[in-house]
Amino acid sequence: MSEPNATPLTGAQALVGTLADHGVTACFANPGTSEMHLVTALDGETRIRSVLCLFEGVATGAADGYARVTGTPAMTLLHLGAGYLNAGANIHNAGRANTPMINVIGDHAVPHLKYDAPLTSDIIGLAGPNSRWIKSAHKVEDTGKLAAEAYAASYGPKPGPVSLLLPADSAWLEGGVIGPKTAAPSLRQVSGDAVKVAAKAIKAAQSPVMIINGTALTETGLQAAARLKAAGLRVLTDTFYGKMRRGAGVFAPERMQYFAEGAMADLEGSDLMVVAGTNPPVAFFSYPGKPSLLVPEGCEVLNLGDASTDSAATLSALADALGADEAAPVEALVVPDKPNGDLTAQSVGQSLARHMPENALVSDDGVSNGLMSYLPTQNAQPHDWMMLTGGAIGQGMPLALGAAIAAPDRKVICLSGDGAGMYTNQALWSMAREQADVTTIVFVNHSYRILNIELYRTGAGNPGPTAKDMLSIGGPDINWVQLSESMGVPAVEVTTAEAFDQALAEAITAPGPRLIAAVVPG
Amino acid sequence: MSEPNATPLTGAQALVGTLADHGVTACFANPGTSEMHLVTALDGETRIRSVLCLFEGVATGAADGYARVTGTPAMTLLHLGAGYLNAGANIHNAGRANTPMINVIGDHAVPHLKYDAPLTSDIIGLAGPNSRWIKSAHKVEDTGKLAAEAYAASYGPKPGPVSLLLPADSAWLEGGVIGPKTAAPSLRQVSGDAVKVAAKAIKAAQSPVMIINGTALTETGLQAAARLKAAGLRVLTDTFYGKMRRGAGVFAPERMQYFAEGAMADLEGSDLMVVAGTNPPVAFFSYPGKPSLLVPEGCEVLNLGDASTDSAATLSALADALGADEAAPVEALVVPDKPNGDLTAQSVGQSLARHMPENALVSDDGVSNGLMSYLPTQNAQPHDWMMLTGGAIGQGMPLALGAAIAAPDRKVICLSGDGAGMYTNQALWSMAREQADVTTIVFVNHSYRILNIELYRTGAGNPGPTAKDMLSIGGPDINWVQLSESMGVPAVEVTTAEAFDQALAEAITAPGPRLIAAVVPG
Repeated sequence: MSEPNATPLTGAQALVGTLADHGVTACFANPGTSEMHLVTALDGETRIRSVLCLFEGVATGAADGYARVTGTPAMTLLHLGAGYLNAGANIHNAGRANTPMINVIGDHAVPHLKYDAPLTSDIIGLAGPNSRWIKSAHKVEDTGKLAAEAYAASYGPKPGPVSLLLPADSAWLEGGVIGPKTAAPSLRQVSGDAVKVAAKAIKAAQSPVMIINGTALTETGLQAAARLKAAGLRVLTDTFYGKMRRGAGVFAPERMQYFAEGAMADLEGSDLMVVAGTNPPVAFFSYPGKPSLLVPEGCEVLNLGDASTDSAATLSALADALGADEAAPVEALVVPDKPNGDLTAQSVGQSLARHMPENALVSDDGVSNGLMSYLPTQNAQPHDWMMLTGGAIGQGMPLALGAAIAAPDRKVICLSGDGAGMYTNQALWSMAREQADVTTIVFVNHSYRILNIELYRTGAGNPGPTAKDMLSIGGPDINWVQLSESMGVPAVEVTTAEAFDQALAEAITAPGPRLIAAVVPG
Repeated sequence: MSEPNATPLTGAQALVGTLADHGVTACFANPGTSEMHLVTALDGETRIRSVLCLFEGVATGAADGYARVTGTPAMTLLHLGAGYLNAGANIHNAGRANTPMINVIGDHAVPHLKYDAPLTSDIIGLAGPNSRWIKSAHKVEDTGKLAAEAYAASYGPKPGPVSLLLPADSAWLEGGVIGPKTAAPSLRQVSGDAVKVAAKAIKAAQSPVMIINGTALTETGLQAAARLKAAGLRVLTDTFYGKMRRGAGVFAPERMQYFAEGAMADLEGSDLMVVAGTNPPVAFFSYPGKPSLLVPEGCEVLNLGDASTDSAATLSALADALGADEAAPVEALVVPDKPNGDLTAQSVGQSLARHMPENALVSDDGVSNGLMSYLPTQNAQPHDWMMLTGGAIGQGMPLALGAAIAAPDRKVICLSGDGAGMYTNQALWSMAREQADVTTIVFVNHSYRILNIELYRTGAGNPGPTAKDMLSIGGPDINWVQLSESMGVPAVEVTTAEAFDQALAEAITAPGPRLIAAVVPG
């Protein structure tokens, strides 16, 4: 479609063609009446694979997963303001992961807007705060141009989700023009002076620590991180990051603790904190009498750029400036013994370390069970780990779906809490339809277990029957095997470590989607 | 809690106590860490029943159903901006139904906000366009006062959803004060002069028509509507309304057609359109070359007040002004024969007419199957019918849940498309937990069938394989019996009219939730 327009294009065709010209190869969609011309435009665009999602939060979670794996944005197709709202929580999460994403939101035809039909809403108003960039293609001739703008805007200055509204008449009218090829901005490079200042401060510090995220968590970035570690820096990642290379042959930084009091105890005594690819660490929630900023008193903070910078390059330049010729050791491959006894998050992690194939992609929405599964996989085959960054649970299964579409040759493992999984259980259906190669592990404890911990931490008092009911998702217990199979994903429930180990081995060997309901202590 | 404060109250306690003082009796909740003090405050407030929902869209859909039945707002408990987004589509729907609703949105503690923790977002920005009123209780001493304000604001001038943000520190600190008892504003009365003008115009018109909604659809309003009908007015309801009294003994107005071309043909020749409790009718979507405003050319429009007015009173005053002493006949009870053969939406409607008990509540999210089920029930036992008003599918099951909590002594029937039901299938779990007396009928056609119709109507061209895939929710077919039972709701699938009739009779006799997967033509 990048040829001079021989046949006239509709606005929808110009939009879709422009995105395809820019390398967009997937569309996660939940269309409605106002998007019918977009749907048929996608019909004619063979460079874009369209994936139907039965709930919009699945579409945006999948677009997030897709982009984390490919490094390029996917498009979504959403149905007016209501569709955007349904999609919104996983757009929030993608924003916090700094994932490029192009949300195409169908709207009423421009002349129809003033009549305030039932689905009319102030889309710019409600989507704006959650979008890095937002515009409406009120004229058919602008559809291609704005699609190109949206593409570029999704890359930055700080990558993230953008919103392009497409009124129905701008979609159906002829007069669309393919937008100009627009280069995506690169991540910013931190200045050499800033790096020199940081190197000097590090040399002068007694107990310097570095917090990293972004491209610092790629293989290249971690090679530089290993040099910084060897030069005497403690290197930690944010508690939650978008994607990190891990496993055998890779340097493993530490990870910031989730609970503020633990993080502060751990950082106690640090006199310098250098931050690259992120912001100074902050408590996830606030608690009476506890700090928000996770920086020990008297510790100097040195900012070497946030998510809009190329932190891998920053780390490499810093290592050079420090004259760090050595590198801290990388992780060895350790295959744990087959675990036995009660099934726990830790034994799940051990089985993962035993069976995860090389280059697996892990989508972690495991909430209270995430950490204990995470630790044992540090010595597994090399893989990429992806986390929930924005705190809106219900991202794990959609993210895994998108990752599998992005990388059909890689095994995807999804870790989900049962509470988290219920939010967007419709992702299972899309996994079945697309035969996505995802093994989903649901930690079944019939509880918002994290909230039982948080209730105590916030000092909200002893829970009575109502509070207990609000934190329990048992009564009735959800049957995850039935739920999964109702949407076409074969499933099995296991209650022992041995049974899990076997189920995981089988699921990983079989292509296509599987679900394991892993019953763990509540 | 309305006593003078003997023991100090937290902000959360003052908020909850104030709402209870105002007659709020239900809270549909999906809490997170920032709402722990609200959860324990609810523990201590026995006047409010807390209902856990596993997805926020279920909570707001249920609050909508609750308020449609009781006439008073329920509160919801939502977790920051992400929780609000998940809740948003059914808040949009509630706004379009003019349903009072008090959404309490937990937020970070005020001093924590500036650190931009992962779940931080511009809640006022993103929730504002979807809220009739929105404020944040940034000071603990304001929590009660603002709760009282929120309660009143949910009633108007035009009833609808309001948003009250509760920062975590305003919840946990002591110093809360119960808010003053605040009267809810009543619906506006249309002036006698306006009624006289309308009566005169109606007398002068050749072919006058009236479009009604709001309180005109109560038993009282429909008695007045029957008088207007007898006086020579054609009386129609909006295509979609919040709640209407129907069935034997009740006057049945006509219903505006959904498709614009049908509606316009039907209204052809009308020279006066009087509108009460709503706005002049508008096409749900726009289509190339088709009108948006559904008013025939040359037809005068006379506005007798929108949803902020008491349209039952308007109709009564208008009937008086017209000297309408007679009333059009009410519907007779007609019990259809047992249907047989293939299961269709129409035979479902016939079975409903046979088995619906008196005073049943119907939640209709039946999309393309809604109308054919609707028509035969016009002569059923008297009942209330509730519709999806805002076009964001996925409201039916949550609305039914809320209706059942509101009226435990009434049978609730839910009609849902399979596409619609998938959006908020988590409602089934809450139905099971609460043993809500709901019979859910899912029209299973494995298709967004309405979109197959709309694709044609919008002239988007012949669907190719991608477009066909985007409109089909088969491949894999969803097993609704498994899905329902996985969440604790007994279910059965039927494929014939006879089997449906029997399944419905059984479900209606049994207390508690049931689901019938009604396989209908795609």
